[in-house]
Amino acid sequence: MTQLELARAGKMTDEVQRAAEAEGVEAERLRQLIAEGKAVLPANVHRERRRPCAVGQGLRTKVNANIGTSADYPDPAKELDKLAAAEQAGADTVMDLSTGGDLVAIRQAILDHAAVPVGTVPIYDAAVQAVREHGAIRAMAADAILGTVRAHAEQGVDFVTVHCGVTRAVVGTMEARGRLCGMVSRGGTFLAHWMRFHGQENPLFERFDEVLAIAREHDVTLSLGDGMRPGAIADAFDAAQVHELMVLAELAERARAAGVQVMIEGPGHVPLHQIEAQVRLQKELCKGAPFYVLGPLVTDIAPGYDHITSAIGGAIAAAAGADFLCYVTPAEHLGLPSAEQVRQGVVAARIAAHTADIAKGIPGAMERDREMSARRRRRDWAGQLELCLDPRLARALRDQARPSDDETCSMCGKFCVFKITDEDVPPQPSAQGEADGS
Amino acid sequence: MTQLELARAGKMTDEVQRAAEAEGVEAERLRQLIAEGKAVLPANVHRERRRPCAVGQGLRTKVNANIGTSADYPDPAKELDKLAAAEQAGADTVMDLSTGGDLVAIRQAILDHAAVPVGTVPIYDAAVQAVREHGAIRAMAADAILGTVRAHAEQGVDFVTVHCGVTRAVVGTMEARGRLCGMVSRGGTFLAHWMRFHGQENPLFERFDEVLAIAREHDVTLSLGDGMRPGAIADAFDAAQVHELMVLAELAERARAAGVQVMIEGPGHVPLHQIEAQVRLQKELCKGAPFYVLGPLVTDIAPGYDHITSAIGGAIAAAAGADFLCYVTPAEHLGLPSAEQVRQGVVAARIAAHTADIAKGIPGAMERDREMSARRRRRDWAGQLELCLDPRLARALRDQARPSDDETCSMCGKFCVFKITDEDVPPQPSAQGEADGS
Repeated sequence: MTQLELARAGKMTDEVQRAAEAEGVEAERLRQLIAEGKAVLPANVHRERRRPCAVGQGLRTKVNANIGTSADYPDPAKELDKLAAAEQAGADTVMDLSTGGDLVAIRQAILDHAAVPVGTVPIYDAAVQAVREHGAIRAMAADAILGTVRAHAEQGVDFVTVHCGVTRAVVGTMEARGRLCGMVSRGGTFLAHWMRFHGQENPLFERFDEVLAIAREHDVTLSLGDGMRPGAIADAFDAAQVHELMVLAELAERARAAGVQVMIEGPGHVPLHQIEAQVRLQKELCKGAPFYVLGPLVTDIAPGYDHITSAIGGAIAAAAGADFLCYVTPAEHLGLPSAEQVRQGVVAARIAAHTADIAKGIPGAMERDREMSARRRRRDWAGQLELCLDPRLARALRDQARPSDDETCSMCGKFCVFKITDEDVPPQPSAQGEADGS
Repeated sequence: MTQLELARAGKMTDEVQRAAEAEGVEAERLRQLIAEGKAVLPANVHRERRRPCAVGQGLRTKVNANIGTSADYPDPAKELDKLAAAEQAGADTVMDLSTGGDLVAIRQAILDHAAVPVGTVPIYDAAVQAVREHGAIRAMAADAILGTVRAHAEQGVDFVTVHCGVTRAVVGTMEARGRLCGMVSRGGTFLAHWMRFHGQENPLFERFDEVLAIAREHDVTLSLGDGMRPGAIADAFDAAQVHELMVLAELAERARAAGVQVMIEGPGHVPLHQIEAQVRLQKELCKGAPFYVLGPLVTDIAPGYDHITSAIGGAIAAAAGADFLCYVTPAEHLGLPSAEQVRQGVVAARIAAHTADIAKGIPGAMERDREMSARRRRRDWAGQLELCLDPRLARALRDQARPSDDETCSMCGKFCVFKITDEDVPPQPSAQGEADGS
């Protein structure tokens, strides 16, 4: 039985208990959210996770880091370094998007080393195999496409992106209406390419019941991919994107009916003023299914800074109800990221997630800011640096421009506002002190 | 006559024409906005600006970079490097916040070298002089406080922050209600400290007519500082902040009546869900006066990344109507920034501003994204890199992980979505080509 089926049957699992504990929510509450399909707990039955995590409504906004080799950079060791960097920076999950080297071995290494849930995009694997064996992506057999989903499930992958909504009708909508950047989803493009050549329907749509059977057997959470995600803000919220979302909403319904955990993927490049509406539409159409967004990037013109453009979009999306942010690194649109860029991407996404958690009123989020500001007010530098999102960097920046007076910083020095105020209004004894009459 | 008085009299000035041209709006439209007090054109009569800029409704969101020495780092040469870095990265204005070294000489050097409008905070100067001459900030004479405003105006400063709203009543509201971080505005703190010691009203409030006379004589734009800006998100939108804003709204009214250009400063640390309401309140209370925000920073816990926390807040604030973003650098809360951190701060703020300009429908903003995405779709790498917000960094990141095929990037390589799609659907001839029948 899947975590969804177990939750519906009222059974408390060890995985739910551990995820609830990590989250700081009651296990019974988490079980209920999973039962309602408003949260998912990616937990393949073949794998143990040292850091399990649930994704969904009322929970802390989670962050995913994409790693993986490419044809030009197939070194698995580098990707394990990125995995370590991502986890150390606080990624809640990782996805292995490898397309270069020995894909089975790399996936196994990531599954072995990762403490967090691991996701993949099986269609990448199918496309790489087709190119290696037959010289062309279009040589993928429909059975092979389903076969990669099964292979990943059997290998222990916790969640898979499946672009089941890239149907002939949806591709037709895109082609009829036109787009500045067309499709930018790799998985969606592989499928559309295959469908055009063979004149056939998307196997992941046509044979969705088989996909569900595999997912149910191994308790793989389905992440319904948005092949039509806009790759330019000019393309956002167009007919193709909405048409696909309507298909995904129906498939999500079928997944839940089959006892399969499901979440929905979202854009992409979206102008700031559309983000809230996009999230609300998804939540309504998909009856509260967890929403997993890539970015969104709020402008197309800032390659090199797309961790920032996506932190802006991600914060707004998550505040509006998105549950899961796929990070974007500074290398996006330019090349494969380094481990350092992976770290920067995770931190930027965590800032967006935390910011949204304050806005959403997630328990514990605001408390950390209160404590940080209390330490700032007391000029407790050691305490502040300890509580920072990235203590190592904060320390390095403080050391870069040391103050002559360690109680202050080098920007204000003796003109420190807190020091001046303390002269006028000596700090109050602590509440504890007052209660003691000290 | 000030630009406000000239605009009201229906007179077109050279400065308005140049600012309108730089902005891409009609000069007559800009003159009208200035006449209505919905835009300001900081333009001290004693100084020429090679890059004049107007700030306000319907105009491109502007970005200010704070530079300036501190007691610990008084080297003027470093600040001129930061000025160059800020202007090169696209700052629309700079503020000299120096508190170390020869303040008059540093200010003069910045005024001489800056192509953009220059702002200052005269109370810093008064406080530094009082400490040097009498050993204490509280030794500032009221006349000396007004004297620094006059000295900066005579020296050619285009806009000054004056914390006129830090009244005894407003400070009383703060003290009665309490705050986690109290006051974090330096200028506000100097004044509150002085007021507590002397038991007197804020001279910048009590003698506001003198401030107006100075501003009018030299056409210095007043930036009414928010001494009560929250320095912790827990303190945002509290009684002290709103009380001060109400005072500033009245003073703005008086400034306009006196023919003095005026804008309002805003927070600070503000949780994401409050930002839009804060901007709307300011715009209503202050009858459309330009709103100049610092950040806002959406969380307190990310020192080292406060260019990102403020890009999130700045984008949302500007989309809601804020007109002018004061950048925040990664060094904020830790120390005085380096030139490189100044550059990073300006770029992050420009991303926020541009993002908001798309949301606000500022002419030209969306067009740049369209063109960027068209070049991306064509795999025109040289063209993309040229149009980036920061071409130098984008090139460096692309070079860091070169692809084997120069038509792609090293993330996707032969699996490039655009390459695959071009195989299926050969690129259309351009519209021009079609019209020619070619």
